[in-house]
Amino acid sequence: MSAITIWTYDWAPPAARGLVRDLRLSWACEEAGLPYTMASVPFDDRETNHLDRQPFGQIPYLTDGDVAIFESGACLLHIARKSEALMPRDAKGEAETLQWTIAALNSIEMVTVPWWYLDATGAKENSLTGWAQSRLDHMERELGGRDWLAAGRFTVADLLMADVLRVPKVREFGSRPATEAYVARITARPAFQKAHADQLAHFAAGDAARA
Amino acid sequence: MSAITIWTYDWAPPAARGLVRDLRLSWACEEAGLPYTMASVPFDDRETNHLDRQPFGQIPYLTDGDVAIFESGACLLHIARKSEALMPRDAKGEAETLQWTIAALNSIEMVTVPWWYLDATGAKENSLTGWAQSRLDHMERELGGRDWLAAGRFTVADLLMADVLRVPKVREFGSRPATEAYVARITARPAFQKAHADQLAHFAAGDAARA
Repeated sequence: MSAITIWTYDWAPPAARGLVRDLRLSWACEEAGLPYTMASVPFDDRETNHLDRQPFGQIPYLTDGDVAIFESGACLLHIARKSEALMPRDAKGEAETLQWTIAALNSIEMVTVPWWYLDATGAKENSLTGWAQSRLDHMERELGGRDWLAAGRFTVADLLMADVLRVPKVREFGSRPATEAYVARITARPAFQKAHADQLAHFAAGDAARA
Repeated sequence: MSAITIWTYDWAPPAARGLVRDLRLSWACEEAGLPYTMASVPFDDRETNHLDRQPFGQIPYLTDGDVAIFESGACLLHIARKSEALMPRDAKGEAETLQWTIAALNSIEMVTVPWWYLDATGAKENSLTGWAQSRLDHMERELGGRDWLAAGRFTVADLLMADVLRVPKVREFGSRPATEAYVARITARPAFQKAHADQLAHFAAGDAARA
């Protein structure tokens, strides 16, 4: 088995810690029992210091033998193909996992991320609020009916959707008990807890190195 | 080979025609030479009339034997696995295709769609403009250096990225000659031309049915 290396920054602002997307990848490896190591590029000059690896100057990206791949969603699908723990192998189960993985990226995050970006930049009136509300209400209806998004079991789609929905701003927005229970349940998994603790420790070490 | 059915609306507003996302799927089938048929759900009451097929009330979704799948990005990856014309089979080529497919959905469209949504809703000041500009400038730099995004050849990543970048509002925003040449070249492909003409004809037939 080739060794996965997950790349992140060597430091992140305190408010972002626990939410940086390399966590998606380490969480997935923990769920699947796949060995991996973490590596860093400097946070300073991040816009330009690794454009050959990630064309938007972001993280995470991963290397796996002679394969290099960026975009957390693409990395997750790459990891998921290595382990049935993350994605069923039958055509129906795989299609369900795939559709909900992409839904997290392109139907939920496409609305919620710009929505809280507008909020964070201090827009007086957030024109994306109605749209965000509608998408999150649709998710609440879906999650009210079942425990898992795909194939009747935990998959990488739950990992990603829970990661998208656990953002504090999203979690505090309106009352959606089924969504809240889902996020609480998925993030209680030992693999998430380990990846989360490891990320906090990594960036704390970054503080020490900068001090 | 099972038969793919691509689902869209029976009608769409004139301004949306030629841009509705079922085109991504029919274009992919045309590129791959895969047989497919089109089917419709009513545009009226679309928010609720097919929630069992598409949980956000949108289209497209596809059925393929006993597999049903929504999210245009997920449908594209499903179709791409059926044909090497859309996605190389070697690990490196597949990873490159996957990362750029997800980049179109989660790095470009996640910014450009809310950006033109804000514009369309008449926001006086569009707080997403700087972010959209930065992402599109990164794409311009990438596209300046090569003809294809992945594996040195046309893939489903080009299909999706060109579809994301060909939106008139995005195309008119700033001067990005490499991006413009890329969009012009990819959309000149016969498979796009056929899918585009078919979509216009489909919605024109919808006009006639409603008259």
